[in-house]
Amino acid sequence: MSNRIRHPGFAALRLSAAEAAQRIRHGMTVGMSGFTGAGYPKAIPGALAEHITARHAQGEPFRITVLTGASTAPELDGVLARVDGIELRVPFQSDPELRGRINSGALEYMDIHLGQLAEKVRYGFFGKVDVAVIEISAILEDGRLVPSSSVGNNKTWLDMADAVILEVNRWQPEALEGMHDIYYDGALPPARQPIPLVHPGDRIGEPYLSVPLEKVVAVVETDAPDRNSPFKQPDAASKAIADHLLDFLRFEVKAGRIPGNLLPIQSGVGNIANAFMQGLGESEFTGLTAFTEVIQDGMLELLISGKLALAAATSFSLSPVGIERFNEHAEFLRKRIVLRQQGISNHPELIRRLGCIALNGMLEADIYGNVNSTHTLGTQMMNGIGGSGDFARNAYLSVFMAPSVAKNGLISTLVPMVSHVDHTEHDVSVIVTDQGLADLRMLSPKQRAKAILERCVHPSYRDALGDYIERANRDSFGKHTPHLLAEALSWHERYRLTGSMLNPEAVG
Amino acid sequence: MSNRIRHPGFAALRLSAAEAAQRIRHGMTVGMSGFTGAGYPKAIPGALAEHITARHAQGEPFRITVLTGASTAPELDGVLARVDGIELRVPFQSDPELRGRINSGALEYMDIHLGQLAEKVRYGFFGKVDVAVIEISAILEDGRLVPSSSVGNNKTWLDMADAVILEVNRWQPEALEGMHDIYYDGALPPARQPIPLVHPGDRIGEPYLSVPLEKVVAVVETDAPDRNSPFKQPDAASKAIADHLLDFLRFEVKAGRIPGNLLPIQSGVGNIANAFMQGLGESEFTGLTAFTEVIQDGMLELLISGKLALAAATSFSLSPVGIERFNEHAEFLRKRIVLRQQGISNHPELIRRLGCIALNGMLEADIYGNVNSTHTLGTQMMNGIGGSGDFARNAYLSVFMAPSVAKNGLISTLVPMVSHVDHTEHDVSVIVTDQGLADLRMLSPKQRAKAILERCVHPSYRDALGDYIERANRDSFGKHTPHLLAEALSWHERYRLTGSMLNPEAVG
Repeated sequence: MSNRIRHPGFAALRLSAAEAAQRIRHGMTVGMSGFTGAGYPKAIPGALAEHITARHAQGEPFRITVLTGASTAPELDGVLARVDGIELRVPFQSDPELRGRINSGALEYMDIHLGQLAEKVRYGFFGKVDVAVIEISAILEDGRLVPSSSVGNNKTWLDMADAVILEVNRWQPEALEGMHDIYYDGALPPARQPIPLVHPGDRIGEPYLSVPLEKVVAVVETDAPDRNSPFKQPDAASKAIADHLLDFLRFEVKAGRIPGNLLPIQSGVGNIANAFMQGLGESEFTGLTAFTEVIQDGMLELLISGKLALAAATSFSLSPVGIERFNEHAEFLRKRIVLRQQGISNHPELIRRLGCIALNGMLEADIYGNVNSTHTLGTQMMNGIGGSGDFARNAYLSVFMAPSVAKNGLISTLVPMVSHVDHTEHDVSVIVTDQGLADLRMLSPKQRAKAILERCVHPSYRDALGDYIERANRDSFGKHTPHLLAEALSWHERYRLTGSMLNPEAVG
Repeated sequence: MSNRIRHPGFAALRLSAAEAAQRIRHGMTVGMSGFTGAGYPKAIPGALAEHITARHAQGEPFRITVLTGASTAPELDGVLARVDGIELRVPFQSDPELRGRINSGALEYMDIHLGQLAEKVRYGFFGKVDVAVIEISAILEDGRLVPSSSVGNNKTWLDMADAVILEVNRWQPEALEGMHDIYYDGALPPARQPIPLVHPGDRIGEPYLSVPLEKVVAVVETDAPDRNSPFKQPDAASKAIADHLLDFLRFEVKAGRIPGNLLPIQSGVGNIANAFMQGLGESEFTGLTAFTEVIQDGMLELLISGKLALAAATSFSLSPVGIERFNEHAEFLRKRIVLRQQGISNHPELIRRLGCIALNGMLEADIYGNVNSTHTLGTQMMNGIGGSGDFARNAYLSVFMAPSVAKNGLISTLVPMVSHVDHTEHDVSVIVTDQGLADLRMLSPKQRAKAILERCVHPSYRDALGDYIERANRDSFGKHTPHLLAEALSWHERYRLTGSMLNPEAVG
């Protein structure tokens, strides 16, 4: 028996991926593991894609609904999208092949706050979950499951599914055992109780998942790495953003509005987040905590350095070097990392109670502080809202960050009106670009426009945006949130038609 | 000593409103009581307005920041706006005089989720609260304060203010005593604890407010009614909306997704809300509860009839007839009504835990389910977001309702793109108009557009909206959330230019 499958009942269910994938049929709803390219099943989706291709060749229809934690990898979203095997995909995704098909209209995609999906499935809003396909790192002698490098919605998929396929991935570090904290609260409204968590590191559950053996239809062994993108050194714009943000936090500490060791940090994924973690590492701040979704390389280094005392998340998203660093320091990190299901890591009750400092990226913001996190030109889906809404709405401070321009200056991040709204001005405290930081707290719309124009806009767009604001203030129908509706989305339209938001006349 | 002021220390501080108002000076931040036209100070604002007028006549500047619970009345917002005495007004308002000045740009207005204002003031984001002006209904022998017909943010204003002016209003029913539940949790992050409330009726605090006598600078006696608008019988559109909603709830109960006595109801203010309460009263539903902001006539009757077992709110908003009904049944109602501070009535932790059914009005929605609750033509403020965001984001079911047309058919409630977003499609489960109900749960954007077009749109706009959807599906840059950006806001622009959203060519 493999030393990763220590229970004979589970071991007896070992099948090949191709055999196991036969359990999934056309029209089914399948809950899969996976969050930010970590902990997704490595073998079943590919085998399923072959199976689907064969059925399609026979002229049979075969498409499924795929529920995950968040983004996965080419081995899941990529292969299933490529064979046209997905009818509906929920929630966050980032695979180029899948994204392309979402935006050509070839399949349906539903974006949802990452903290809400599991509970809405439990409420019955999605109907039945037919099959769960869940990567784990081991099965104990007593049948309990050691979770993998992400927890995501796995508990709910295991609980809800009629049938369960487990992938036991021996590539996953054995050191993961004991880091997870799975909260077992079965109650739905009106019987729900307070969640007994008052510090980011509180353990309120058990380190293992569990599933009745009778529901398990296959156990598949794999040995395959997570997506693990290489770490990119932060660029100049990201560093400038991180510096503005650090200065702001220093100012808030000095003003007595946040404690000297800050408040629990939530940090979105990406270059800017890593730059901010590096900045924190070089700063005077210490005794920090994180209550967040994802642990990236930057946060891992901050833990290893001791400046970050604790990080709670639902997933890792490490580079190959990051994995090595994790393995080297696994014993040290075990007491400092808690991996939770995403319904808990992103729970509004906890984010509000803890008073998180929420740091999220954005595609664009408008002069009034509305933020678009998802849609290019208002119509094309990038990835999804992720957990940004869970955190931004309930955070102590809600910060949105992006370079002031994109595509070598052809796109301005600050526009008259965003082409899609994911976060209303009510949920945005601070906007930061490489140009500077606008503190929007307690400002009226016109005051927000002034602050954003003065602090955040790239010089090549400042005159045009200032001109829009001035004319809107003069000619708008209502003067509370002045806009010229016929022109409000013209920057996007100009980009679509000319490939640039710059006004050729103004530039001329 | 007045039988409403039973503590000699407070009684010794009795002043006229004119004398008390002198304590308020130019540039101050003043926290006033008041929520939906209930429990606002009746005398000080008018006296202050006279004082301001006199100062202005001397050529002196005199404007203040006014924080309230929510909307007040002409005697507060109206008089202060008229004399140009307001620099910044926060949050929700509905006074015509004030609204006019907000929309002419004469003063600053900041809209904020009603459940968040008190905590953001406590965080220090608004600076100091100089004076609190709070209506109460009595002062007990031991100095504790019996709150008035709304609780709102009164606890926070009393706690935070340097100086306190109390208005003791003998018009307020003595029967209010004992109905309030003021939660005394002093902890801010990182020391905050779970809120120990698991049922809408749980009492987790004390029925009284309190304030150190040393902070009180004046006690003013008044005898004046709340705003108390007359009750209007629901019109045909409101009744149709209520009927669609009742049918939907029956369907959900049958499907096993909500219990037979529903889940705690949150109901916005207005005609549709009253129609729905009447509909509930005539329905088979019983054993209901409400966890909401405001108790209107409709909800009061539902309590008196016994169908509604309990209502928790932060304020009353009754008609003159409703007040009589309340007084007649005060003893019966005392065990069935709990009035809380708005930071608790609207707390995301509690709304999520209880699984509220959130019912809110809207100005307009678009084909993808984004909702505008606040801005006419994207620029002119109506009232404010109120508590709709607190509830919609965290509710079990989030319903938005409006007649399918406004202004005798010149405005369509359903438009290609809303001109302002208060609630993103992520937070909108169901849209109801007099035409029908669209269940948007778990639908992709294109599926939502189809459901809204088929179910909610008024016949006179159906062809035009269907035509937009069809052309957007064909010609949009991205096909995930199809839009024609150059045309998306054209219905609003047409209304601004022609006084109608109807396309004259299409109408021919």
